[in-house]
Amino acid sequence: MLELAIGNLNYSSWSMRAWLLLQHFNIPFRERYLRFDGFEPDSVFKQSALALSATGKVPVLIDGDLVVWDSLAIAEYLAEQYPDRPLWPAERSLRAQARSVCAQMHSDFAALRTACPMNIEADLRQTGALIWRDHPEVRRDVAQIESLWEISRALSGGPFLFREFSIADAFFAPVCMRIRGYGLPVSKQSDDYINRVATTPAVAQWVQRARAENDFLAFEEPYRLGR
Amino acid sequence: MLELAIGNLNYSSWSMRAWLLLQHFNIPFRERYLRFDGFEPDSVFKQSALALSATGKVPVLIDGDLVVWDSLAIAEYLAEQYPDRPLWPAERSLRAQARSVCAQMHSDFAALRTACPMNIEADLRQTGALIWRDHPEVRRDVAQIESLWEISRALSGGPFLFREFSIADAFFAPVCMRIRGYGLPVSKQSDDYINRVATTPAVAQWVQRARAENDFLAFEEPYRLGR
Ligand SMILES: N[C@@H](CCC(=O)N[C@@H](CS)C(=O)NCC(=O)O)C(=O)O
Ligand SMILES: N[C@@H](CCC(=O)N[C@@H](CS)C(=O)NCC(=O)O)C(=O)O
Repeated sequence: MLELAIGNLNYSSWSMRAWLLLQHFNIPFRERYLRFDGFEPDSVFKQSALALSATGKVPVLIDGDLVVWDSLAIAEYLAEQYPDRPLWPAERSLRAQARSVCAQMHSDFAALRTACPMNIEADLRQTGALIWRDHPEVRRDVAQIESLWEISRALSGGPFLFREFSIADAFFAPVCMRIRGYGLPVSKQSDDYINRVATTPAVAQWVQRARAENDFLAFEEPYRLGR
Repeated sequence: MLELAIGNLNYSSWSMRAWLLLQHFNIPFRERYLRFDGFEPDSVFKQSALALSATGKVPVLIDGDLVVWDSLAIAEYLAEQYPDRPLWPAERSLRAQARSVCAQMHSDFAALRTACPMNIEADLRQTGALIWRDHPEVRRDVAQIESLWEISRALSGGPFLFREFSIADAFFAPVCMRIRGYGLPVSKQSDDYINRVATTPAVAQWVQRARAENDFLAFEEPYRLGR
């Protein structure tokens, strides 16, 4: 059976994506939970993650002898291995568009990522309002993301980015969590889309578990001293 | 015919990747050159790039009505459209590994990217020596890249990352240029690999054109006042 190594559900945005794909598309898998005790070379997390892959990061997918790391490579691997499940849109042109937005999400939006690390359980709306006021690059990132969402839904007809929930929605799910948790102001359409993602069963399940995790890691918490 | 929009050859690391794939795999295409006069909203570059895609960045691949942007999405698109060309390794396990290293290259190594922007024609070895001395994160990025290279060649048998030149080598070609131009110290094996990439005809051709470009853009030149 496939095995997926993930980090803390509340914090690990990259883990969330890979996990959502397996869960949403009903691909049987076992979970290996690697708590983020730290990212230093001598942390239990790092030691365990380095035993799995050269990068020492999560997520990591283990399929027998094969080790696939990086959420985007995992997505492509699953799409190849499970051609009967609509991980990518079936139409060539929508698929190309979906890959474009995912690859961009993968490599871009550093300002939003840095200013607003994922923290599902936290109410960071005060912090978010200050970030929004003072960080034009964050506003730019959010505007760009909203326009990608709009274009994608317009091309496909919605209600998800490419009609049904696909890799693209899994890739933006952590961004949806950030926009919510930090209360960043977005359009009514974006807000509806975020609700749609958040109520997708696999996403709701991850969020619920993240909220019940009861873990506080100071190095993932630039804005809180405790819970 | 396919059309590929690219930026300045000397500076545009992302354009280089997509171009190398088309060129190396003998896929007929037309080039659309968008000079980097600037990245501000009113620059000619930005206006032209925004007329092509919502992101306003290069590379952009145009295939009739279809617009694919982002170098990784372009790579996947070409691999799908030209299944007879070995863009990805044919073996499932090598392909998964190749996608892992490419996706990681796509989303990671911010320290190296920021400190050492690609600048093919420039001799930045003095600057590189200072960066190497003072930036442990850059040393860490390079060490991680070298270990990815080593693992990949060990898995596949070399001499390229996955035996023959593939998407993975195109993805690391700009890093090869940075390591060279900034004179960053790497192992003998890495150095051999960099030479192998640099002498691949498509790469050599890009480099030659980059050297002949005769353009100097101050905003891409943190380390030079002129040529
Ligand atoms: N590009 C990778 C990024 C993975 C990543 O950065 N994961 C974080 C956790 S969310 C990690 O393991 N960090 C450990 C570290 O940076 O040492 C992916 O898409 O999977
Ligand atoms: N992830 C994108 C990045 C593309 C990118 O950043 N391209 C640069 C040129 S090398 C650009 O067009 N920059 C314009 C800007 O940042 O406004 C890709 O892989 O294609």
